[in-house]
Amino acid sequence: MQKYNLVVIGGGSGGLVVAAGGAGLGARVALAEKHKMGGDCLNYGCVPSKSLLRAAKAVHQVRAASRFGIQNTTDPGPQDFLPVRDYIRASQAHIAPHDSVERFSGLGVEVFQAAARLVSPHEVDVDGKRLWGRHIVVATGSRARVPSTPGLLEAGFLTNESIFSIEQLPGSLAVLGGGPIGVEIGQAFARLGSKVTIVSRTPHIVPKEDPDAAQALTRSLRNEGVTVLDRSEVISVRLVSGKKRLEIAGTGSSPSHVDVEEILVAAGRTPNVEGLGLENAGVAVSAKGIQTDRRCRTTSPSVWAIGDVAGEFLFTHWAGYQARVILRNTLFPLTVECDYENLPWTTFTDPEIARVGHSETSASKAGIPHDVFRVEFSSNDRAVCDGEHEGSFAKVLADRKGRILGATIVHPHAGDLLAELVLAKKHGLRLPALSNTVHAYPTLSEIGRALGDAYMRTRLTAGTKSRLTKVYQWLRR
Amino acid sequence: MQKYNLVVIGGGSGGLVVAAGGAGLGARVALAEKHKMGGDCLNYGCVPSKSLLRAAKAVHQVRAASRFGIQNTTDPGPQDFLPVRDYIRASQAHIAPHDSVERFSGLGVEVFQAAARLVSPHEVDVDGKRLWGRHIVVATGSRARVPSTPGLLEAGFLTNESIFSIEQLPGSLAVLGGGPIGVEIGQAFARLGSKVTIVSRTPHIVPKEDPDAAQALTRSLRNEGVTVLDRSEVISVRLVSGKKRLEIAGTGSSPSHVDVEEILVAAGRTPNVEGLGLENAGVAVSAKGIQTDRRCRTTSPSVWAIGDVAGEFLFTHWAGYQARVILRNTLFPLTVECDYENLPWTTFTDPEIARVGHSETSASKAGIPHDVFRVEFSSNDRAVCDGEHEGSFAKVLADRKGRILGATIVHPHAGDLLAELVLAKKHGLRLPALSNTVHAYPTLSEIGRALGDAYMRTRLTAGTKSRLTKVYQWLRR
Repeated sequence: MQKYNLVVIGGGSGGLVVAAGGAGLGARVALAEKHKMGGDCLNYGCVPSKSLLRAAKAVHQVRAASRFGIQNTTDPGPQDFLPVRDYIRASQAHIAPHDSVERFSGLGVEVFQAAARLVSPHEVDVDGKRLWGRHIVVATGSRARVPSTPGLLEAGFLTNESIFSIEQLPGSLAVLGGGPIGVEIGQAFARLGSKVTIVSRTPHIVPKEDPDAAQALTRSLRNEGVTVLDRSEVISVRLVSGKKRLEIAGTGSSPSHVDVEEILVAAGRTPNVEGLGLENAGVAVSAKGIQTDRRCRTTSPSVWAIGDVAGEFLFTHWAGYQARVILRNTLFPLTVECDYENLPWTTFTDPEIARVGHSETSASKAGIPHDVFRVEFSSNDRAVCDGEHEGSFAKVLADRKGRILGATIVHPHAGDLLAELVLAKKHGLRLPALSNTVHAYPTLSEIGRALGDAYMRTRLTAGTKSRLTKVYQWLRR
Repeated sequence: MQKYNLVVIGGGSGGLVVAAGGAGLGARVALAEKHKMGGDCLNYGCVPSKSLLRAAKAVHQVRAASRFGIQNTTDPGPQDFLPVRDYIRASQAHIAPHDSVERFSGLGVEVFQAAARLVSPHEVDVDGKRLWGRHIVVATGSRARVPSTPGLLEAGFLTNESIFSIEQLPGSLAVLGGGPIGVEIGQAFARLGSKVTIVSRTPHIVPKEDPDAAQALTRSLRNEGVTVLDRSEVISVRLVSGKKRLEIAGTGSSPSHVDVEEILVAAGRTPNVEGLGLENAGVAVSAKGIQTDRRCRTTSPSVWAIGDVAGEFLFTHWAGYQARVILRNTLFPLTVECDYENLPWTTFTDPEIARVGHSETSASKAGIPHDVFRVEFSSNDRAVCDGEHEGSFAKVLADRKGRILGATIVHPHAGDLLAELVLAKKHGLRLPALSNTVHAYPTLSEIGRALGDAYMRTRLTAGTKSRLTKVYQWLRR
């Protein structure tokens, strides 16, 4: 029986980083992937979706050009999907070699293109072959959760796995779910020319974000012609004269039904735990996924789980981060815990919503005392010159000493702008440190300094100012 | 005679921050501005130029849409300048109230809309009125330096003060000078439809940046149809059949002359020191501008100078930073020095070039030992999805311990992306800190982590790896 330091199940974002990192350190690593290398991220997730969003933004930019005084432009109208799909595939083709069997074999990883199944806490069966692992890492990801709405299966629907392969732009599209995937793809299809309706059960879309961030996004979506139905639910689907009719139970302002050509199901994710033989290794599973401790260890000491299948945060960069934690915990003597406090994420709509740490809602719910410092992009000169200031803002939550508890940015470039705040938060730099760092003018990044300045202004008390005023008076004698 | 803690001469970026800050702290402040509040930045600099660049980018985006699979778009052709000028003026109008007499009067600053002249180290004459200042701050800025090229004055030319007020897009434009102002405006006019020729004496444009950064920009400009003539000089100008003919002395590949409709002079800046009565206060002036020490103090102890007129770095944010230093040094007991090491700047071309600290050239010239870690945006997934990866890169210079000595980023969003590195450099966070901070996927900001990772990879020596390999072998028994 072949013996490995690490047997990795799943060649997506998490598994690939474990495999490459382990091999790079000199460990013997096996990697089993039954479907496509690169996982959801490369094949059905971030990469195709961000490429789709970019193409859709291009249409939007053509339409917006006249705002900047540009003449002789016309609305290009509804788009063919095939050339857009070609652009998406070209992006995937550019990135694919990085995740390929060839590259990983070259790194010294033994890659098995087959399903893997645990047979004991240290043994995995891959295509009839038995592998022994000092440690086994499960990184099998997740898939779209399909709600049990009557008629949905019969009517047919798309998920993130099929939507990037369609051949025709649907004239109309209903998106079930107002989470990040739903709003991103919904906005993109609307920009390409579909009539899009987002149906969301929660009080507002992107329900994990603060209401003011969600409100800014909702306003943007509606301005672009997207119908957003909050507090609404599809209760049944049936075919009516060639279209899919969604019966909707919602608030007073929601329509009773919507007829569409296509449905995108983006209503949460299901962890891929089936057929892995987890029971043979004593690995416990909950509805959210494989149960792990803060060190990514499952209930079976030699088995670890990371990324979507562990159900905590469903982000590529979280899987990649956990992969590094796993490398520490399996290949070095001292184990470490995941840092849950300094994880950023971004919803890649236009505007983007970027977050790290606490939102106002979560801090209040947790009873954490905090001050909020909020800055509008309408006072950031670059945002004004770029015409990207309306409805965009940044806010930071801090304790009395200016330590950052969380931050939210709403702006077309929010995801990039947040990085400075994440670095500051992670490494204990307080708001005065942002204030006393020079930021180039005119850049959007000055928003970081503006947040620091907003904090600093609160430090000058009335008492101090009145004492200073007396000193200055004396100095003028 | 009215007595003030601060008499500020010049209502541009530097002077306004001193005035607002001083008044906010309770000091009595006078501000004299003889022309327009907001100075060059608002009226003839950053604000109109970034708005112009944005409009020009809009044309570029229309042309680029087909790259992303978008159909039914057409090149809008050469643009009328008047609607673009309207866009520029709208941006200025949005920002102007922030710099207005009304706002500053409201803050408690006594604003004099007149020329000011030093009559002694503590006295200023404003429109016949005598003001006494405990401290006097000179912040009068700079203007375009006009070379003494034969025929230039007679032929007529534009500078940053006049180019935003023209009424017609010139069919052809020669830009004298390959510095930031010249390349930014040159690219913008080319995108709007002018045939642009940039004539630069230096070995490459943006001469303060590394050759590889300049090369990436030069390639971009040439791809967009801009003629870039390095190591070339205009030796005379004359009118030939209604056009301005520039005789050029250059390298073998340069043409002997270029005929254009308009000339933009962007060949350096001249400090505004005339008529200020500096001699009456014993303030020494060099060719670069008013001489100051690292505390912004001139040769006259009660007189200070900041921003362009002091000639060190000609950036709005440097003036704003020095304004804060001045507030410390004039209104608090302990004085501080300017921090020259952590000043970022950006050339706002497409791609942008952003810099902090040492470039490779400057570090080598200064004999500072350094390692260079370079990452291409072609391995940043977001840049690939956005189609903005070709020719873009980031590099960081670090010492053996990973302390950041400098960084350069070349990318359409370089200015914003640099902020994280500036914060790290300023506050002593080393490259491992960038590596162990989670960056959201897929954002451009991951370039920061990638630079950290590039450093980390060099820390795993062959000896360590071979010892680890033996341990892992033993663990597989």
